[in-house]
Amino acid sequence: MTQANAPALRPRSTLVVTAHAGDFVWRAGGAIALAAARGERVTIACLTFGERGESAKAWREGRKLDEIKAIRRDEAERAAAALGAEVRFFDAGDYPLVATAELTDRLVAVYRETQPDVVLTHPAEDPYNGDHPAASRMALEARVLAQAIGYPGEGEIIGAPPVFYFEPHQPEMSGFKPQVLLDITEVWDTKREAMECLAAQQHLWDYYTDLAVRRGVQLKRNAGPNLGLAHKTMAEAFMRPYPQIAKELA
Amino acid sequence: MTQANAPALRPRSTLVVTAHAGDFVWRAGGAIALAAARGERVTIACLTFGERGESAKAWREGRKLDEIKAIRRDEAERAAAALGAEVRFFDAGDYPLVATAELTDRLVAVYRETQPDVVLTHPAEDPYNGDHPAASRMALEARVLAQAIGYPGEGEIIGAPPVFYFEPHQPEMSGFKPQVLLDITEVWDTKREAMECLAAQQHLWDYYTDLAVRRGVQLKRNAGPNLGLAHKTMAEAFMRPYPQIAKELA
Amino acid sequence: MTQANAPALRPRSTLVVTAHAGDFVWRAGGAIALAAARGERVTIACLTFGERGESAKAWREGRKLDEIKAIRRDEAERAAAALGAEVRFFDAGDYPLVATAELTDRLVAVYRETQPDVVLTHPAEDPYNGDHPAASRMALEARVLAQAIGYPGEGEIIGAPPVFYFEPHQPEMSGFKPQVLLDITEVWDTKREAMECLAAQQHLWDYYTDLAVRRGVQLKRNAGPNLGLAHKTMAEAFMRPYPQIAKELA
Amino acid sequence: MTQANAPALRPRSTLVVTAHAGDFVWRAGGAIALAAARGERVTIACLTFGERGESAKAWREGRKLDEIKAIRRDEAERAAAALGAEVRFFDAGDYPLVATAELTDRLVAVYRETQPDVVLTHPAEDPYNGDHPAASRMALEARVLAQAIGYPGEGEIIGAPPVFYFEPHQPEMSGFKPQVLLDITEVWDTKREAMECLAAQQHLWDYYTDLAVRRGVQLKRNAGPNLGLAHKTMAEAFMRPYPQIAKELA
Amino acid sequence: MTQANAPALRPRSTLVVTAHAGDFVWRAGGAIALAAARGERVTIACLTFGERGESAKAWREGRKLDEIKAIRRDEAERAAAALGAEVRFFDAGDYPLVATAELTDRLVAVYRETQPDVVLTHPAEDPYNGDHPAASRMALEARVLAQAIGYPGEGEIIGAPPVFYFEPHQPEMSGFKPQVLLDITEVWDTKREAMECLAAQQHLWDYYTDLAVRRGVQLKRNAGPNLGLAHKTMAEAFMRPYPQIAKELA
Amino acid sequence: MTQANAPALRPRSTLVVTAHAGDFVWRAGGAIALAAARGERVTIACLTFGERGESAKAWREGRKLDEIKAIRRDEAERAAAALGAEVRFFDAGDYPLVATAELTDRLVAVYRETQPDVVLTHPAEDPYNGDHPAASRMALEARVLAQAIGYPGEGEIIGAPPVFYFEPHQPEMSGFKPQVLLDITEVWDTKREAMECLAAQQHLWDYYTDLAVRRGVQLKRNAGPNLGLAHKTMAEAFMRPYPQIAKELA
Repeated sequence: MTQANAPALRPRSTLVVTAHAGDFVWRAGGAIALAAARGERVTIACLTFGERGESAKAWREGRKLDEIKAIRRDEAERAAAALGAEVRFFDAGDYPLVATAELTDRLVAVYRETQPDVVLTHPAEDPYNGDHPAASRMALEARVLAQAIGYPGEGEIIGAPPVFYFEPHQPEMSGFKPQVLLDITEVWDTKREAMECLAAQQHLWDYYTDLAVRRGVQLKRNAGPNLGLAHKTMAEAFMRPYPQIAKELA
Repeated sequence: MTQANAPALRPRSTLVVTAHAGDFVWRAGGAIALAAARGERVTIACLTFGERGESAKAWREGRKLDEIKAIRRDEAERAAAALGAEVRFFDAGDYPLVATAELTDRLVAVYRETQPDVVLTHPAEDPYNGDHPAASRMALEARVLAQAIGYPGEGEIIGAPPVFYFEPHQPEMSGFKPQVLLDITEVWDTKREAMECLAAQQHLWDYYTDLAVRRGVQLKRNAGPNLGLAHKTMAEAFMRPYPQIAKELA
Repeated sequence: MTQANAPALRPRSTLVVTAHAGDFVWRAGGAIALAAARGERVTIACLTFGERGESAKAWREGRKLDEIKAIRRDEAERAAAALGAEVRFFDAGDYPLVATAELTDRLVAVYRETQPDVVLTHPAEDPYNGDHPAASRMALEARVLAQAIGYPGEGEIIGAPPVFYFEPHQPEMSGFKPQVLLDITEVWDTKREAMECLAAQQHLWDYYTDLAVRRGVQLKRNAGPNLGLAHKTMAEAFMRPYPQIAKELA
Repeated sequence: MTQANAPALRPRSTLVVTAHAGDFVWRAGGAIALAAARGERVTIACLTFGERGESAKAWREGRKLDEIKAIRRDEAERAAAALGAEVRFFDAGDYPLVATAELTDRLVAVYRETQPDVVLTHPAEDPYNGDHPAASRMALEARVLAQAIGYPGEGEIIGAPPVFYFEPHQPEMSGFKPQVLLDITEVWDTKREAMECLAAQQHLWDYYTDLAVRRGVQLKRNAGPNLGLAHKTMAEAFMRPYPQIAKELA
Repeated sequence: MTQANAPALRPRSTLVVTAHAGDFVWRAGGAIALAAARGERVTIACLTFGERGESAKAWREGRKLDEIKAIRRDEAERAAAALGAEVRFFDAGDYPLVATAELTDRLVAVYRETQPDVVLTHPAEDPYNGDHPAASRMALEARVLAQAIGYPGEGEIIGAPPVFYFEPHQPEMSGFKPQVLLDITEVWDTKREAMECLAAQQHLWDYYTDLAVRRGVQLKRNAGPNLGLAHKTMAEAFMRPYPQIAKELA
Repeated sequence: MTQANAPALRPRSTLVVTAHAGDFVWRAGGAIALAAARGERVTIACLTFGERGESAKAWREGRKLDEIKAIRRDEAERAAAALGAEVRFFDAGDYPLVATAELTDRLVAVYRETQPDVVLTHPAEDPYNGDHPAASRMALEARVLAQAIGYPGEGEIIGAPPVFYFEPHQPEMSGFKPQVLLDITEVWDTKREAMECLAAQQHLWDYYTDLAVRRGVQLKRNAGPNLGLAHKTMAEAFMRPYPQIAKELA
């Protein structure tokens, strides 16, 4: 194991750690599409397919577990492709998603392989779905372990990439307070296309379109002058569990 | 009164609202020097000279109120000049600093005149010095009023510039949690020079140098890879009461 | 002054205390319409017309202060009529709304006259509009004073009516966490009609319709079985600063 | 597995999930007795007998583990009978109570069998007894899992019943802030009778009587007019982790 | 004005700042009696008589304002004498108690005259009585001003004496979390005697006796071994807004 | 198993529970040295050697796991000896430190053997190192279990000794607010000597010296008059998760 060198030779890298197959689309599809549009690498570590907890429609239609997993995998792969990202499935089993040493180990390996400059994951709280905080805890723990030269495994150790929590379904009940409003207007069509890959959750297409409008209104309300914002700005909201490193206040 | 147009013709503008004459040096000298070094305009609205509450040495030497004000004014003007900023004194009287409609009105006028892209002020809490929160409340109130076309007064209305709270003397007791760590390494000598203009508080020169070192260590601990940081990074810490507007997560 | 007796002879009474002329419509129109539909009395104490801070369009059209006040008064009166409520204007001046002993005194008199069973007002925080917390503080202070037999003035003292905070424009930034989700489906058309009385703020009609949809989705997500909810439930969210008094857990 | 239908045919159902044999009596005996008095079904899932952590007297008398379990079981059964509820013992072992997949599974089965309209459990924090938060976490996790059609097991899935946290022994140290004050005056004698079934903890009989008096005083202090409260109102306090669903503000 | 010297020549001094005439008895009577029993000086700055807000019985009996003030003064003086303290009345008017520069000035003078080693006052929040936080804010502001050599007035400047918040009537609703549990067993009879001087509030005698028992139980539950506590320990609870200075951890 | 008797015959005892070999030196070396200097017993339960997470230098030098453990053990033993304390290594494995029933059991045994009057451990949060909160949770859980006569094992049960959280490396990011400032001036040289036993972390010697200076400045800023503090006071900061038991307010 050697430490990173010559970092400038590779493009910026984003790692997204999510509990279920659809999460990265609804909550961070804009951020992913923006990074991909800049020519950066985006890797999604999808811990489960959401086969038990987020596939009610398929269960009601009488489908079997393996069939449901296959459907969710297919949908997620098409959505990731639409956004310009690569998705990896851990198939760790959902509802409940249970942390294990082996899962953490696999996550550390992905951190060291992808050398992320940015990490996206669920926030620490969600009283409506325990899998989300479980994924968040694992993502954060693996990020710290992957920095330690003494933690065994392949690959180079990583730095301390900034972490962003994406927005949960019921933000106020999950202690979610927007700290970053990301302008995703220019990739909005791509996000909508990715959402439409998730056929089983059609009722969420408009819900998350409305959310992007609302976060866009909030963005404009919090913007200083001179920003040249689009008339209809679309946005995604994030929190930062660690401080921002800055060269300039803005 | 007309609304802003042709904003691109003027340089970026920073407005710093502080309670006492020395505050802008200890707490935001680096941020000010960085902005000035980029050719931007920095205006400091200094509500009082700190003549009663932060001039113990002068009182012990038997000086009179007017004399003390003159000393503090002179020191602050020299420090501002060293940083590359303009300072305006409101002479509102400290210990306690009391909010009045007239003070707010004068602050609104400064906002509209300077059209700030960035606002710096004290955080909302400080159990050791009530003047600091009082200045913060006035700074925030005036910022909102200055945005309203219906609020009377000269000048154009402003947008909603981002606000940064600078670090208080006892951060943990004032609910201060660093949300932005600003790298001030390249202007450190300038900040030190400005601090040394404040002869009456010589015991704070090293104290705030140590603080900058410590915040620099923290900056590096929170930095991702590839940032090319200086070996001895100096930093200032800030909070954001409003969400950051971003085009990219970083 | 005598204490309340024979309370059963009067209908239930709701008192709404707001900063500006439009607030009661956007934020509590459903709650007001529901109460009115049950035959109850609803009184709105509207502290200002929002003439400076929430009438940007009229100012841009070049209207004068008195003209703007008249417009806002007219709109609010028609909206209140649509909802089935009575509105009283205090004309205390907005941006900023400043608490005075005389204003508090007038509010105490309204409490004692209307003998509210329920009080609605703004939440305690709003970093985007200081008039809202100012109105909230006055509403809560007057509610406590109106309970004291020793506080001078006409009318009977009141009990300790429950207080509900209605939803601010940027809930997450104002510490707003929904504690009560009120089903307003059956009066939705009435609320929409009242919103449409506010011609100057047409851009908010759809915004608050979307909000009602979203709070309705949240209501259903938090509802137990057997509630027989409408397919498209519309809702308003509230907080409770004081504990709920209950005869049954539900 | 089929989804709920014809829900109106069964009486309302309350599920109480507690760590130790005595908890449901001290903390929720009034709420249980009220529900039972209305002809509703109340089921208590008692995860342990409190045999190690809450039976100091028996251990000091030299009793053996099995003997202590039998005593606590007997006491709890008599107390439950007095209140009009059914108690089920999980015998999961206390001090510490450890969450397992099997325990969660059994709890999910009880949720699906009893189809609760209301859930009562411990709050999320208790720095004096880790078993209480452990029981709370399991109760909440099982409640979410029991809603998912994809989670395997017998019985119908459930809705999202409201949850109430009952009061811990040291409320201020456990982040407990009363959000609901339940008037238990009419069933007070029943609660006292149930408490007196717990012979081993006789020192708590008066302690929890005093608590009910104090919460009753607080109830009256927070009550609006016209409630016709008893002179000596007895009460229990609860928190709500999820928002209340309401048809009317009161 | 000269700075303190020869401090060892005077006994320890405690300053209690309260809103109303009865507060010091119910909330801090034990702490006061303990200090007095050690031969220390205790001064109570009582900002109002509680003539409007806490004298309902007298108003119901038809008494006049001046008569009520005289009654409350007399009661408070007898209670203070029972505890061994001196009480000073500011007669600032209650319900609402309004901060003024003149009141603050008088408080600064008391600080400088009494040179307190310990300060007791109300906590920062009380949603049931705004006079309590108002008194607290004034007590804390005057304490800071009295430390400044530049603040005008008679007497020596003071150090930074520790502050203790005493317990409000509804602790959980006022953000009150016990941080210090003071054993008042040995002066309990004195506190009870002082309470009984407050004839108008007889219903509170037992209420605050029960509170002392409960805080005593909590004290024992939080006590390490070897403390030799009384069987029936009586206690008062306090918060510390500033850190404790210690020579030893205990 | 019998309950404690004749407690007065043994000296006061302090138990320090830490995650890694160096923690007790940087964070509590002053508190330990003070206790030892008073002739008290101090026992350090060191759960891991910090062999993976806090030994980067040794890994970079190419050392093996066992070698690194031996180095860290040796350093820690010399540091403990310098402070006057005994250290026990649990060798539980770090990065991540995982709680097990067996570890808890061993900790309970240490509690019962050492009968601590004071417990020191990490605070509950640390987003930079998950081992610290893990150690804290185990320390607190074992402390509660060791109080229960029903929890099996050798030795007498313990009382409820006060707990102090020592300061983490990034206090503001870990929710750390100083509640106790301990004057360690008289043992400062001893702490420095112990720090210098940790050769691998030489960059921290000055860092923690500066921290002690800064906490000393804060101590003086929060000290009342008459304390006779050293000109250059050195201090350590602590939090209290449980209330302080006091015989006197100071």
